[in-house]
Amino acid sequence: MKVALIGFGTVGQGFVEILQEKHASLAEKYGLTVEIVAVATHSRGSLMQPDGLDIDALLDAIGKGHLRHYPHREGLVRDVVTETLIDQCGADVLLEASWTNLQTGQPATDYCLRGFQNGQHVVLANKGPVALHYQQLAQAAKAAGKALRYEGTVMAGTPSLALAKEALAGCTISAAKGILNGSTNYMLTEMERGIDYETVMDDAKAKGYLEADPTADVGGWDAASKAVILARSLFGANITIDDLDVSGIDVISSGDIAAAKAAGERYKLIAEVTPAGGSVKAVRLPLADPLAGVAGTTNAITFETDLLGPVTLVGAGAGRRETGFALLADLLAIQRQKVT
Amino acid sequence: MKVALIGFGTVGQGFVEILQEKHASLAEKYGLTVEIVAVATHSRGSLMQPDGLDIDALLDAIGKGHLRHYPHREGLVRDVVTETLIDQCGADVLLEASWTNLQTGQPATDYCLRGFQNGQHVVLANKGPVALHYQQLAQAAKAAGKALRYEGTVMAGTPSLALAKEALAGCTISAAKGILNGSTNYMLTEMERGIDYETVMDDAKAKGYLEADPTADVGGWDAASKAVILARSLFGANITIDDLDVSGIDVISSGDIAAAKAAGERYKLIAEVTPAGGSVKAVRLPLADPLAGVAGTTNAITFETDLLGPVTLVGAGAGRRETGFALLADLLAIQRQKVT
Repeated sequence: MKVALIGFGTVGQGFVEILQEKHASLAEKYGLTVEIVAVATHSRGSLMQPDGLDIDALLDAIGKGHLRHYPHREGLVRDVVTETLIDQCGADVLLEASWTNLQTGQPATDYCLRGFQNGQHVVLANKGPVALHYQQLAQAAKAAGKALRYEGTVMAGTPSLALAKEALAGCTISAAKGILNGSTNYMLTEMERGIDYETVMDDAKAKGYLEADPTADVGGWDAASKAVILARSLFGANITIDDLDVSGIDVISSGDIAAAKAAGERYKLIAEVTPAGGSVKAVRLPLADPLAGVAGTTNAITFETDLLGPVTLVGAGAGRRETGFALLADLLAIQRQKVT
Repeated sequence: MKVALIGFGTVGQGFVEILQEKHASLAEKYGLTVEIVAVATHSRGSLMQPDGLDIDALLDAIGKGHLRHYPHREGLVRDVVTETLIDQCGADVLLEASWTNLQTGQPATDYCLRGFQNGQHVVLANKGPVALHYQQLAQAAKAAGKALRYEGTVMAGTPSLALAKEALAGCTISAAKGILNGSTNYMLTEMERGIDYETVMDDAKAKGYLEADPTADVGGWDAASKAVILARSLFGANITIDDLDVSGIDVISSGDIAAAKAAGERYKLIAEVTPAGGSVKAVRLPLADPLAGVAGTTNAITFETDLLGPVTLVGAGAGRRETGFALLADLLAIQRQKVT
């Protein structure tokens, strides 16, 4: 399977490290051999080699800060513009793992559409295109007869979408409800220990859980973009983030949290979607609720189903290897579909 | 997809009811049309009709207590022995949902092997053959180039095996640990409320959670058979139930439970397997453990993975529709593998 990697930051590097480590076992257990035929970055160069880049050299080069450090090989092409790279690299699958733009979803969305035009499957770890342009992507995938997969956009590699759409196929899902933002869940967990909001925020920034501008996390917008992806993917709902009722943890005080604790309850930032719409807000849950026990940066999602009742999945919601694995999981799913 | 149903008790009927209800949506959403070409029971007759039995009439007949109540149709054959039925019914998939025999796994194992000899895929809801004769079944499946699936044997339809083997493909699982017996989890939950063991047991029997002879549940043997299935399925471990260290909840007193509660802990009957072996025993978990929050008849399993850390699935572990769905889920998985 020949893949092109658009974006080579944390997630892309995590993915390539997994390939480096698991090359032999993937071939043996799943018959999957992944060749990276192209890598494009925004400001650290790009590489294209139709018979496959060397993984060790690739990681070594990006470790030195720029793909220019990749050694010359016969057939190697450097620094072509990304559109040309997508057209000419000969990939079977385009992996979109560039930086998420939640305002426009660009340029990633155009790259994905270009991939479909070239007859490539498209796998995204990038939330923007899926949250903003799902309909267009799904139509392009259908027209091309190719796969559109985006496991990494909801709970990193924890397979929430594979569970809902494949393992639970045959059930009707009427609602999904979950903790989809790990940094705010970490903050709520710490605040329940009596630490105040500002201190917890500094701590979360220091640990790398929050960006310098934490608005997307603490305001609920990161969770909301995941809720939109779930609503579109599970229900085909034609909604945008503006259709959701969104608030964050920035409206919850230490006093609120102490009051909930005294009442045997616990605040969680819950994203919820049904075919009729959705919301993100901090709600008080009884301790017996399966989502109440989810602590720290862990994520969780409960699907309400007609045949099984509630089914809950709990796991990591972020991380280099965790999200890198999401790309691999989607490749393996595409591979499984090809088996006759 | 033509299927033969061996066993037509709670699970088989649950499965057929789901087909009755979802016939149109399964065809539309997944392109799956299931025709039941044969039904075999131990003492309530059998039916074979190569162009498909009528589902309404089938449920009506078994509702009246015997398949003899199914009306005569052109081409219908009644009351052939099960071996002949398997050979002659023309099924693509054999569904084994007869009564579980945990001593011998028979006659179900021989039926499954016969299915493979006939070039049929085999799907089991019956734990016996998988727990006792996994190796033989897996070899026969491989030789025939057919699927061997058994989602319903671990957590009813809650897709623990699909999660581990498909959605988590690419991860290495180093251990699985879970609450795999709902009736004893219900009993422990009730005992924590201060109700004594004998009263809880009577209550669980009255609710249908326990058999008249509750040994398999309270002694840990039901959970142990599921642990064997997990060990074989996840790790290829060639172990039997005798290789596990098994104890049940019958060794836990009300005093033990009260002492755990006072210490902020909770007893759970935990089945655990690694490539090196496994155990079933009642252990005290801190309340923060994801498995500690699993109450009532609910089941749960945590997979320890190399790339995602712990991934936990929580859901129903028993029930007519829940286990009936497991058969459907396995059929849909077989169907997905056929899509090119």
